[in-house]
Amino acid sequence: MTQQQVMEEALFKHIRTHTKANDPVVEDLKRYFDCLRPSKKEILLPSHTICNRLYFVSSGCLRAFFTDENGVEKTVQFALENWWISDFLAFHHRRPTDTTIQAIEPSEVLSISYDNFQRLLIDHPFMEHYFRRVWEIGYGATVTRVKYLFSHSKEDIFYRFREQYPEFANRVPQYMLATFLGLTPEYLSKLRAKKRS
Amino acid sequence: MTQQQVMEEALFKHIRTHTKANDPVVEDLKRYFDCLRPSKKEILLPSHTICNRLYFVSSGCLRAFFTDENGVEKTVQFALENWWISDFLAFHHRRPTDTTIQAIEPSEVLSISYDNFQRLLIDHPFMEHYFRRVWEIGYGATVTRVKYLFSHSKEDIFYRFREQYPEFANRVPQYMLATFLGLTPEYLSKLRAKKRS
Repeated sequence: MTQQQVMEEALFKHIRTHTKANDPVVEDLKRYFDCLRPSKKEILLPSHTICNRLYFVSSGCLRAFFTDENGVEKTVQFALENWWISDFLAFHHRRPTDTTIQAIEPSEVLSISYDNFQRLLIDHPFMEHYFRRVWEIGYGATVTRVKYLFSHSKEDIFYRFREQYPEFANRVPQYMLATFLGLTPEYLSKLRAKKRS
Repeated sequence: MTQQQVMEEALFKHIRTHTKANDPVVEDLKRYFDCLRPSKKEILLPSHTICNRLYFVSSGCLRAFFTDENGVEKTVQFALENWWISDFLAFHHRRPTDTTIQAIEPSEVLSISYDNFQRLLIDHPFMEHYFRRVWEIGYGATVTRVKYLFSHSKEDIFYRFREQYPEFANRVPQYMLATFLGLTPEYLSKLRAKKRS
Protein backbone atom coordinates (compact mmCIF):
# COMPACT_ATOMS: atom_id res chain seq x y z
CA MET A 1 0.00 0.00 0.00
CA THR A 2 1.17 3.53 -0.71
CA GLN A 3 1.39 6.01 2.16
CA GLN A 4 -1.77 7.66 0.87
CA GLN A 5 -3.64 4.35 0.89
CA VAL A 6 -2.55 3.73 4.50
CA MET A 7 -3.95 7.14 5.48
CA GLU A 8 -7.22 6.49 3.67
CA GLU A 9 -7.52 3.01 5.19
CA ALA A 10 -7.59 4.52 8.72
CA LEU A 11 -10.68 6.55 7.80
CA PHE A 12 -12.32 3.69 5.88
CA LYS A 13 -11.85 1.39 8.86
CA HIS A 14 -13.44 4.00 11.11
CA ILE A 15 -16.38 4.33 8.70
CA ARG A 16 -16.82 0.54 8.63
CA THR A 17 -17.03 0.41 12.44
CA HIS A 18 -19.95 2.87 12.36
CA THR A 19 -21.79 1.78 9.20
CA LYS A 20 -22.50 -1.30 7.11
CA ALA A 21 -20.95 0.21 3.97
CA ASN A 22 -19.24 -2.33 1.71
CA ASP A 23 -15.71 -2.03 0.33
CA PRO A 24 -16.41 -0.69 -3.21
CA VAL A 25 -18.63 2.06 -1.78
CA VAL A 26 -16.06 3.01 0.84
CA GLU A 27 -13.31 2.98 -1.80
CA ASP A 28 -15.28 5.58 -3.78
CA LEU A 29 -15.10 8.01 -0.87
CA LYS A 30 -11.42 8.84 -1.37
CA ARG A 31 -12.15 11.32 -4.16
CA TYR A 32 -13.81 13.69 -1.68
CA PHE A 33 -10.77 13.95 0.61
CA ASP A 34 -7.36 15.57 0.51
CA CYS A 35 -4.35 13.91 2.14
CA LEU A 36 -2.21 16.24 4.24
CA ARG A 37 1.05 15.49 6.03
CA PRO A 38 1.66 18.44 8.33
CA SER A 39 4.96 18.59 10.20
CA LYS A 40 5.19 19.38 13.90
CA LYS A 41 3.76 22.86 14.67
CA GLU A 42 2.44 23.29 11.13
CA ILE A 43 -0.82 25.22 10.95
CA LEU A 44 -3.66 23.69 8.92
CA LEU A 45 -6.35 26.27 9.62
CA PRO A 46 -5.18 29.79 10.44
CA SER A 47 -7.47 31.85 12.66
CA HIS A 48 -9.55 34.72 11.24
CA THR A 49 -10.29 32.83 8.04
CA ILE A 50 -13.54 31.13 7.00
CA CYS A 51 -13.61 27.67 8.54
CA ASN A 52 -14.04 25.67 5.39
CA ARG A 53 -12.72 22.22 6.32
CA LEU A 54 -13.06 19.21 8.59
CA TYR A 55 -9.95 17.22 9.54
CA PHE A 56 -9.69 13.50 10.34
CA VAL A 57 -6.48 12.34 12.06
CA SER A 58 -5.12 9.09 10.53
CA SER A 59 -1.97 9.33 12.64
CA GLY A 60 -0.41 11.95 14.90
CA CYS A 61 -2.16 14.65 16.88
CA LEU A 62 -3.79 17.99 16.11
CA ARG A 63 -5.08 20.66 18.43
CA ALA A 64 -7.50 23.58 18.13
CA PHE A 65 -6.60 26.71 20.09
CA PHE A 66 -7.42 30.39 20.35
CA THR A 67 -5.28 33.23 21.68
CA ASP A 68 -6.80 35.15 24.58
CA GLU A 69 -6.52 38.89 25.18
CA ASN A 70 -3.30 38.37 27.18
CA GLY A 71 -1.69 36.53 24.27
CA VAL A 72 -1.99 33.09 25.92
CA GLU A 73 -2.77 30.21 23.54
CA LYS A 74 -5.65 28.19 25.00
CA THR A 75 -6.23 24.70 23.68
CA VAL A 76 -9.94 23.91 23.29
CA GLN A 77 -9.65 20.50 21.60
CA PHE A 78 -7.11 17.78 20.89
CA ALA A 79 -7.55 15.16 18.16
CA LEU A 80 -5.59 11.92 18.26
CA GLU A 81 -5.99 9.04 15.74
CA ASN A 82 -9.60 8.51 14.56
CA TRP A 83 -10.86 11.88 15.78
CA TRP A 84 -12.33 14.65 13.71
CA ILE A 85 -11.40 18.24 14.50
CA SER A 86 -12.53 21.66 13.26
CA ASP A 87 -14.41 24.67 14.55
CA PHE A 88 -17.67 22.80 13.95
CA LEU A 89 -19.96 25.76 14.55
CA ALA A 90 -18.00 28.05 12.23
CA PHE A 91 -17.85 25.21 9.67
CA HIS A 92 -21.60 24.61 9.87
CA HIS A 93 -22.35 28.30 9.31
CA ARG A 94 -19.33 28.92 7.02
CA ARG A 95 -18.23 31.74 9.28
CA PRO A 96 -14.77 33.10 10.10
CA THR A 97 -13.20 31.40 13.09
CA ASP A 98 -10.91 32.63 15.86
CA THR A 99 -9.63 29.05 16.18
CA THR A 100 -6.27 27.84 14.85
CA ILE A 101 -5.81 24.16 13.97
CA GLN A 102 -2.22 22.99 14.35
CA ALA A 103 -0.31 19.69 14.25
CA ILE A 104 1.56 19.06 17.49
CA GLU A 105 3.31 15.98 16.05
CA PRO A 106 4.15 15.09 12.45
CA SER A 107 0.69 13.87 11.42
CA GLU A 108 -1.33 12.30 8.63
CA VAL A 109 -4.65 13.96 8.06
CA LEU A 110 -7.60 13.55 5.70
CA SER A 111 -9.33 16.83 5.08
CA ILE A 112 -12.65 17.54 3.41
CA SER A 113 -13.87 20.92 2.19
CA TYR A 114 -17.35 22.23 2.97
CA ASP A 115 -18.48 21.78 -0.64
CA ASN A 116 -17.12 18.24 -0.86
CA PHE A 117 -18.72 17.42 2.49
CA GLN A 118 -22.14 18.46 1.13
CA ARG A 119 -21.54 16.50 -2.08
CA LEU A 120 -20.38 13.43 -0.17
CA LEU A 121 -23.56 13.44 1.93
CA ILE A 122 -25.81 13.78 -1.13
CA ASP A 123 -23.94 11.11 -3.15
CA HIS A 124 -23.59 8.71 -0.19
CA PRO A 125 -26.44 9.22 2.30
CA PHE A 126 -25.07 6.46 4.57
CA MET A 127 -22.39 8.98 5.50
CA GLU A 128 -25.14 10.99 7.28
CA HIS A 129 -25.42 7.97 9.58
CA TYR A 130 -21.64 7.94 10.10
CA PHE A 131 -21.38 11.64 10.91
CA ARG A 132 -24.55 11.60 13.04
CA ARG A 133 -22.91 8.94 15.21
CA VAL A 134 -19.50 10.63 15.29
CA TRP A 135 -20.99 14.02 16.18
CA GLU A 136 -23.24 12.36 18.79
CA ILE A 137 -20.14 10.96 20.53
CA GLY A 138 -18.17 14.20 20.10
CA TYR A 139 -21.08 16.29 21.44
CA GLY A 140 -21.58 13.94 24.38
CA ALA A 141 -17.85 13.83 25.13
CA THR A 142 -17.61 17.62 25.12
CA VAL A 143 -20.52 18.00 27.57
CA THR A 144 -18.84 15.32 29.71
CA ARG A 145 -15.64 17.38 29.56
CA VAL A 146 -17.52 20.45 30.85
CA LYS A 147 -18.79 18.24 33.67
CA TYR A 148 -15.18 17.20 34.37
CA LEU A 149 -14.05 20.85 34.47
CA PHE A 150 -16.85 21.59 36.96
CA SER A 151 -16.21 18.50 39.11
CA HIS A 152 -12.69 19.12 40.31
CA SER A 153 -10.80 21.94 41.96
CA LYS A 154 -8.02 23.63 40.01
CA GLU A 155 -5.59 21.98 42.38
CA ASP A 156 -6.84 18.49 41.53
CA ILE A 157 -7.78 18.63 37.88
CA PHE A 158 -4.33 18.33 36.30
CA TYR A 159 -3.14 15.33 38.32
CA ARG A 160 -6.51 13.57 38.19
CA PHE A 161 -6.60 13.93 34.43
CA ARG A 162 -3.07 12.56 34.09
CA GLU A 163 -4.02 9.60 36.25
CA GLN A 164 -7.24 8.87 34.35
CA TYR A 165 -5.92 9.40 30.83
CA PRO A 166 -2.16 8.69 31.09
CA GLU A 167 -1.61 7.77 27.42
CA PHE A 168 -3.26 10.95 26.27
CA ALA A 169 -1.74 13.17 28.97
CA ASN A 170 1.81 11.93 28.33
CA ARG A 171 1.58 12.54 24.62
CA VAL A 172 0.77 16.24 24.54
CA PRO A 173 2.92 19.13 25.81
CA GLN A 174 2.01 19.81 29.42
CA TYR A 175 1.48 23.55 28.98
CA MET A 176 -1.10 22.79 26.27
CA LEU A 177 -2.78 20.25 28.54
CA ALA A 178 -2.90 22.89 31.29
CA THR A 179 -4.96 25.31 29.19
CA PHE A 180 -7.14 22.41 27.92
CA LEU A 181 -8.04 21.86 31.60
CA GLY A 182 -8.74 25.54 32.25
CA LEU A 183 -5.42 26.26 34.04
CA THR A 184 -2.94 28.95 33.10
CA PRO A 185 0.61 27.78 32.28
CA GLU A 186 1.74 29.88 35.31
CA TYR A 187 -0.63 28.00 37.60
CA LEU A 188 0.81 24.72 36.33
CA SER A 189 4.36 25.91 37.12
CA LYS A 190 3.26 26.84 40.64
CA LEU A 191 1.63 23.42 41.12
CA ARG A 192 4.81 21.69 40.02
CA ALA A 193 7.02 23.83 42.25
CA LYS A 194 4.70 23.06 45.17
CA LYS A 195 4.92 19.35 44.44
CA ARG A 196 8.71 19.46 44.30
CA SER A 197 9.03 21.33 47.60
CA MET B 1 -55.37 21.83 17.06
CA THR B 2 -55.15 19.79 20.24
CA GLN B 3 -52.42 20.57 22.77
CA GLN B 4 -50.59 17.44 21.62
CA GLN B 5 -50.68 18.58 18.00
CA VAL B 6 -49.27 21.97 18.99
CA MET B 7 -46.37 20.21 20.75
CA GLU B 8 -45.71 17.96 17.76
CA GLU B 9 -45.90 20.90 15.37
CA ALA B 10 -42.94 22.58 17.12
CA LEU B 11 -40.74 19.55 16.38
CA PHE B 12 -42.10 19.11 12.83
CA LYS B 13 -41.36 22.76 12.08
CA HIS B 14 -37.81 22.29 13.38
CA ILE B 15 -37.38 19.19 11.20
CA ARG B 16 -38.65 21.10 8.17
CA THR B 17 -36.07 23.86 8.69
CA HIS B 18 -33.28 21.25 8.54
CA THR B 19 -34.60 18.84 5.89
CA LYS B 20 -36.74 18.77 2.76
CA ALA B 21 -39.23 16.28 4.24
CA ASN B 22 -42.80 16.75 3.06
CA ASP B 23 -45.85 16.96 5.31
CA PRO B 24 -47.18 13.36 5.12
CA VAL B 25 -43.72 11.97 5.95
CA VAL B 26 -43.28 14.37 8.85
CA GLU B 27 -46.80 13.54 10.09
CA ASP B 28 -45.80 9.87 10.32
CA LEU B 29 -43.03 10.69 12.79
CA LYS B 30 -45.40 11.32 15.69
CA ARG B 31 -45.78 7.62 16.46
CA TYR B 32 -42.14 7.42 17.60
CA PHE B 33 -42.48 10.14 20.24
CA ASP B 34 -44.08 10.50 23.66
CA CYS B 35 -45.60 13.81 24.74
CA LEU B 36 -44.66 14.89 28.26
CA ARG B 37 -45.87 17.89 30.23
CA PRO B 38 -43.56 18.15 33.22
CA SER B 39 -44.39 20.72 35.88
CA LYS B 40 -41.80 23.08 37.35
CA LYS B 41 -39.00 21.14 39.10
CA GLU B 42 -40.29 17.79 37.83
CA ILE B 43 -37.55 15.29 37.06
CA LEU B 44 -37.69 13.54 33.68
CA LEU B 45 -34.49 11.52 33.92
CA PRO B 46 -33.29 10.62 37.42
CA SER B 47 -29.53 10.17 37.85
CA HIS B 48 -28.00 6.72 38.30
CA THR B 49 -30.36 5.15 35.78
CA ILE B 50 -29.65 4.04 32.21
CA CYS B 51 -29.97 7.10 29.96
CA ASN B 52 -32.56 5.75 27.57
CA ARG B 53 -34.18 8.87 26.12
CA LEU B 54 -33.66 12.08 24.17
CA TYR B 55 -35.84 15.11 24.95
CA PHE B 56 -36.97 17.89 22.59
CA VAL B 57 -38.35 21.05 24.19
CA SER B 58 -41.51 22.30 22.43
CA SER B 59 -42.06 24.96 25.09
CA GLY B 60 -40.54 25.76 28.48
CA CYS B 61 -37.03 24.99 29.69
CA LEU B 62 -35.17 21.90 30.88
CA ARG B 63 -31.75 21.59 32.46
CA ALA B 64 -29.24 18.78 32.93
CA PHE B 65 -27.26 18.81 36.18
CA PHE B 66 -25.10 16.62 38.38
CA THR B 67 -24.48 16.86 42.11
CA ASP B 68 -20.82 17.31 43.07
CA GLU B 69 -19.10 15.75 46.09
CA ASN B 70 -20.07 18.78 48.23
CA GLY B 71 -23.74 18.33 47.38
CA VAL B 72 -23.85 21.32 45.01
CA GLU B 73 -26.07 20.90 41.93
CA LYS B 74 -24.07 21.94 38.86
CA THR B 75 -25.95 22.70 35.66
CA VAL B 76 -24.15 21.39 32.58
CA GLN B 77 -26.80 22.19 29.96
CA PHE B 78 -29.98 24.18 29.52
CA ALA B 79 -32.53 23.49 26.78
CA LEU B 80 -35.01 26.16 25.71
CA GLU B 81 -37.54 25.78 22.86
CA ASN B 82 -36.22 23.79 19.87
CA TRP B 83 -33.28 22.29 21.73
CA TRP B 84 -32.58 18.65 22.37
CA ILE B 85 -31.25 17.59 25.74
CA SER B 86 -29.98 14.32 27.25
CA ASP B 87 -26.72 12.82 28.46
CA PHE B 88 -25.76 12.14 24.84
CA LEU B 89 -22.71 10.00 25.60
CA ALA B 90 -24.59 7.79 28.09
CA PHE B 91 -27.49 7.60 25.60
CA HIS B 92 -25.19 6.59 22.75
CA HIS B 93 -23.62 3.82 24.84
CA ARG B 94 -26.80 3.02 26.80
CA ARG B 95 -24.90 3.50 30.02
CA PRO B 96 -26.03 4.72 33.45
CA THR B 97 -25.76 8.47 33.85
CA ASP B 98 -24.93 10.71 36.81
CA THR B 99 -26.97 13.45 35.11
CA THR B 100 -30.48 14.49 36.16
CA ILE B 101 -32.82 16.10 33.62
CA GLN B 102 -35.32 18.46 35.20
CA ALA B 103 -37.93 20.97 34.05
CA ILE B 104 -37.24 24.43 35.46
CA GLU B 105 -40.55 25.80 34.09
CA PRO B 106 -43.81 24.02 33.27
CA SER B 107 -42.76 22.58 29.90
CA GLU B 108 -43.92 20.64 26.87
CA VAL B 109 -41.50 17.97 25.77
CA LEU B 110 -41.33 15.32 23.06
CA SER B 111 -39.33 12.35 24.20
CA ILE B 112 -38.01 9.43 22.18
CA SER B 113 -36.67 6.16 23.60
CA TYR B 114 -33.40 4.60 22.43
CA ASP B 115 -35.24 1.79 20.62
CA ASN B 116 -37.66 4.15 18.90
CA PHE B 117 -34.76 6.41 17.93
CA GLN B 118 -33.05 3.48 16.16
CA ARG B 119 -36.34 2.48 14.49
CA LEU B 120 -37.04 6.06 13.40
CA LEU B 121 -33.62 6.32 11.73
CA ILE B 122 -34.06 3.02 9.89
CA ASP B 123 -37.63 3.79 8.76
CA HIS B 124 -36.87 7.42 7.85
CA PRO B 125 -33.22 7.81 6.83
CA PHE B 126 -33.69 11.55 6.20
CA MET B 127 -33.79 11.87 9.99
CA GLU B 128 -30.06 10.95 10.01
CA HIS B 129 -29.58 14.20 8.09
CA TYR B 130 -31.67 16.10 10.66
CA PHE B 131 -29.83 14.71 13.67
CA ARG B 132 -26.42 15.02 11.99
CA ARG B 133 -27.10 18.74 11.56
CA VAL B 134 -28.57 19.20 15.05
CA TRP B 135 -25.66 17.36 16.74
CA GLU B 136 -23.17 19.30 14.55
CA ILE B 137 -24.58 22.56 15.92
CA GLY B 138 -24.82 21.23 19.50
CA TYR B 139 -21.26 19.87 19.37
CA GLY B 140 -19.94 23.12 17.93
CA ALA B 141 -21.88 25.22 20.44
CA THR B 142 -20.52 23.18 23.36
CA VAL B 143 -16.91 23.60 22.20
CA THR B 144 -17.64 27.32 21.79
CA ARG B 145 -18.98 27.33 25.36
CA VAL B 146 -15.70 25.81 26.62
CA LYS B 147 -13.90 28.59 24.74
CA TYR B 148 -16.18 31.11 26.48
CA LEU B 149 -15.39 29.61 29.90
CA PHE B 150 -11.66 29.89 29.10
CA SER B 151 -11.89 33.43 27.68
CA HIS B 152 -13.13 35.36 30.67
CA SER B 153 -12.15 35.74 34.29
CA LYS B 154 -14.53 34.49 36.97
CA GLU B 155 -15.20 38.12 37.81
CA ASP B 156 -16.33 38.92 34.28
CA ILE B 157 -18.08 35.83 33.05
CA PHE B 158 -21.44 36.21 34.78
CA TYR B 159 -22.08 39.82 33.78
CA ARG B 160 -20.71 39.39 30.28
CA PHE B 161 -22.98 36.41 29.72
CA ARG B 162 -26.00 38.33 30.98
CA GLU B 163 -25.15 41.18 28.63
CA GLN B 164 -24.64 38.93 25.61
CA TYR B 165 -27.59 36.60 26.16
CA PRO B 166 -30.11 38.67 28.16
CA GLU B 167 -33.22 36.72 27.13
CA PHE B 168 -31.66 33.45 28.13
CA ALA B 169 -29.96 34.78 31.28
CA ASN B 170 -33.15 36.42 32.58
CA ARG B 171 -35.20 33.28 32.14
CA VAL B 172 -33.26 30.83 34.30
CA PRO B 173 -32.65 31.00 38.06
CA GLN B 174 -29.42 32.89 38.67
CA TYR B 175 -27.87 30.27 40.97
CA MET B 176 -28.30 27.70 38.17
CA LEU B 177 -26.76 30.10 35.67
CA ALA B 178 -23.81 30.59 38.05
CA THR B 179 -22.91 26.88 38.04
CA PHE B 180 -23.51 26.71 34.26
CA LEU B 181 -20.73 29.34 33.99
CA GLY B 182 -18.38 27.49 36.32
CA LEU B 183 -19.06 29.71 39.37
CA THR B 184 -20.20 28.51 42.79
CA PRO B 185 -23.47 29.99 44.08
CA GLU B 186 -21.38 31.48 46.96
CA TYR B 187 -19.09 33.24 44.49
CA LEU B 188 -22.15 34.72 42.78
CA SER B 189 -23.43 36.06 46.14
CA LYS B 190 -20.03 37.66 46.79
CA LEU B 191 -20.03 39.24 43.32
CA ARG B 192 -23.47 40.71 43.93
CA ALA B 193 -22.56 42.01 47.38
CA LYS B 194 -19.47 43.64 45.86
CA LYS B 195 -21.58 45.26 43.15
CA ARG B 196 -24.04 46.63 45.70
CA SER B 197 -21.34 48.11 47.96
